[in-house]
Amino acid sequence: MAERGLDAVVVIADELENPIFRYVTKGAKMLWGAYIKQRAAAPVLLHHALERDEAMRTGYETICLDRWNILEILKQIPDRMEATVEQYRRIFSELGIRGRVGFYGSADSGYAFTFLNRLQAVVPGLEIVGEHPDTGLFTAARMTKEPDEIEHIRRAARGTIETVTETVAFLRGHAVRDSHLVKPDGEPLTIGEVKRFIRQTLLKHGLVEPDVTIFSIGRDAGVGHNSGEDTAHVELGKSIVYDIFPRDVTSGYYFDMTRTFCLGWAPPEVEQAHREVSDCLDAILAALKPGTWFGEYQRLACEFFEARGHPTLQTDPSTQVGYNHSLGHGIGLEVHEGPYLRNTPDTKGVLEPGMVFTLEPGLYYPERGFGVRLEDVIYLDENGTFHNLTPYPRDLIIPMTNHSWSSLDL
Amino acid sequence: MAERGLDAVVVIADELENPIFRYVTKGAKMLWGAYIKQRAAAPVLLHHALERDEAMRTGYETICLDRWNILEILKQIPDRMEATVEQYRRIFSELGIRGRVGFYGSADSGYAFTFLNRLQAVVPGLEIVGEHPDTGLFTAARMTKEPDEIEHIRRAARGTIETVTETVAFLRGHAVRDSHLVKPDGEPLTIGEVKRFIRQTLLKHGLVEPDVTIFSIGRDAGVGHNSGEDTAHVELGKSIVYDIFPRDVTSGYYFDMTRTFCLGWAPPEVEQAHREVSDCLDAILAALKPGTWFGEYQRLACEFFEARGHPTLQTDPSTQVGYNHSLGHGIGLEVHEGPYLRNTPDTKGVLEPGMVFTLEPGLYYPERGFGVRLEDVIYLDENGTFHNLTPYPRDLIIPMTNHSWSSLDL
Repeated sequence: MAERGLDAVVVIADELENPIFRYVTKGAKMLWGAYIKQRAAAPVLLHHALERDEAMRTGYETICLDRWNILEILKQIPDRMEATVEQYRRIFSELGIRGRVGFYGSADSGYAFTFLNRLQAVVPGLEIVGEHPDTGLFTAARMTKEPDEIEHIRRAARGTIETVTETVAFLRGHAVRDSHLVKPDGEPLTIGEVKRFIRQTLLKHGLVEPDVTIFSIGRDAGVGHNSGEDTAHVELGKSIVYDIFPRDVTSGYYFDMTRTFCLGWAPPEVEQAHREVSDCLDAILAALKPGTWFGEYQRLACEFFEARGHPTLQTDPSTQVGYNHSLGHGIGLEVHEGPYLRNTPDTKGVLEPGMVFTLEPGLYYPERGFGVRLEDVIYLDENGTFHNLTPYPRDLIIPMTNHSWSSLDL
Repeated sequence: MAERGLDAVVVIADELENPIFRYVTKGAKMLWGAYIKQRAAAPVLLHHALERDEAMRTGYETICLDRWNILEILKQIPDRMEATVEQYRRIFSELGIRGRVGFYGSADSGYAFTFLNRLQAVVPGLEIVGEHPDTGLFTAARMTKEPDEIEHIRRAARGTIETVTETVAFLRGHAVRDSHLVKPDGEPLTIGEVKRFIRQTLLKHGLVEPDVTIFSIGRDAGVGHNSGEDTAHVELGKSIVYDIFPRDVTSGYYFDMTRTFCLGWAPPEVEQAHREVSDCLDAILAALKPGTWFGEYQRLACEFFEARGHPTLQTDPSTQVGYNHSLGHGIGLEVHEGPYLRNTPDTKGVLEPGMVFTLEPGLYYPERGFGVRLEDVIYLDENGTFHNLTPYPRDLIIPMTNHSWSSLDL
């Protein structure tokens, strides 16, 4: 706060998923409220009457919002926006909040714009400060993890790796007909059914997927965030990008890993791309050093791929083939958070103890029918040692033992 | 848009859960982008290169954000906030967006404030308009559902009711010792274990719980949003508020229902409160009429409880006991959306065909160790007929057949 010249920080909550509010309240299950921290003062947590128990569990000083009762205010000001402005004017006045105040927490964008402009207009001496989420105060604070956070991520890692292991066994348990996986009833296995298996397996391990797991095949695997067509069949000899990033139900912490598979056999160009991506990942892992600028590793990855003839964001910022995304990102209460491993001019910061981040080089050629990505999660500990939290093999080919003859294309 | 005097509407997306963006893109799995609709023009969907397939699936005209490449802009303006402002300045200039522009979609609040103020400053003739989420353009649009949305909600209803049915069977399948439910190993069943069963059962029915299901017992059931202590035991003769509001994985639509149970037997005051809440729900159901102001039913509910000696928000806007919340809310892509059944001076609107909303009267006395809530979902169809989408009995007592002798307190 001092570094940013802030006199106070306010984190608001209004139903929407809110990683910053979850962070400051240590995971309290609250839909509404505000966390307020003034410089050189203990935080205060404002809460709705229905959520007083949850608020109290945080251990903070709590104040029920009924102290500035919105129903009473609405009787004077029958407009929800203006009544809320008046409620916060009273809160700021009573708590003595003024000066440069940083606002954080999820909200509707237009509402935040109007509400905060109105609030700034009615609170004497208030200057509201907003930051870009990639570089904000809480992004910086959350970038280095405490030991309990590492434990949460490790727990999510175990369940995720177990789910990938079980997914592979599930795929191998299917028979093959005409190069397609088929179910016992002879019908082709679809990606929608694989995803259903993944969801159920995650849950068994205490994990949920708030967003959809990427399980995309062939051409679709060549478009980074194509999550795969539910109706598509699972075919042999095509690249499958399996990018899984579930959240631990209990702690709210994420894991994130990617493997690329070919069932039965792999086309030579997929094999080569897979080898290059794997070698790139090894090169990055070997180069990791505490204190290094985040952007350094994206530069390395780009140069690695450029030397092998692939377009990258460095050679063409708009390329849709080759290596066309950043190298990685932090994980924690969000699946994407700091540090962002990009080599853009605005990228600031170096690898520090406590950071947990992905490394996910990839190569994408949708028009040639494939894409490859490999993603591990790395943790830099207090002693400057890097730990790979993704002890899962990178093998491209999943052998299918359960072939029927027709799969050999005789 | 015309009613609000808007020349254009922009819905932005930046990773956060974003019901409005999901609504306008018909459920596209996109992390980033913007939906732009100018008056008397077809919508345009701006998207990230990695998400071009998902964007195209919406059927809208799509433009890749690389047309105004952020990496190129960052080379000139090495600050993410200012570079994004410049990117949108170029977008607005090229697409000819000016005048009164309504902004919507989830974002960090401080970021939205600063970004939109900066954008307004650099785009000639731009006036940015924000609305309170409870009364905004998309809240109004989403308040009445299309037939396919009703189908999504009905599907979620079936899975939810099935889950409640299975939860009751799960509870009844346990033995009783000293008035506590015990597992086969003789250890007491905990609420954490019940919640785990609920999560797994929901998933079996294609549903997830993004927030935590409320399963709270005794005193905790007396605080509206207390979701129950994971370590608490499941005891006979105490009120259990079971409020379940999962989301259909495929469609993204919610259901929401509440029942209050007592295992084995119920204390007389809980029985009485349950009867009053049930009678109140019946009174509201009987009073439903198309074209009636939303607030009318909250007024009715308050008067019903006041006549029986309970405090309400009408008699004391800060009461923490009695009936201390609003009567209900719409459901759809959010668990809480319009219409809001409150009788506040800002509440506008009447019951219209296509609306789907909850009715959830309750009585809360935490200091006396109980709370009761009953919640059904109602759909008003095109012909003016109300349908209760919650065909599940309201019975308070779940008979426990599997008693051990000690449970009779001999």
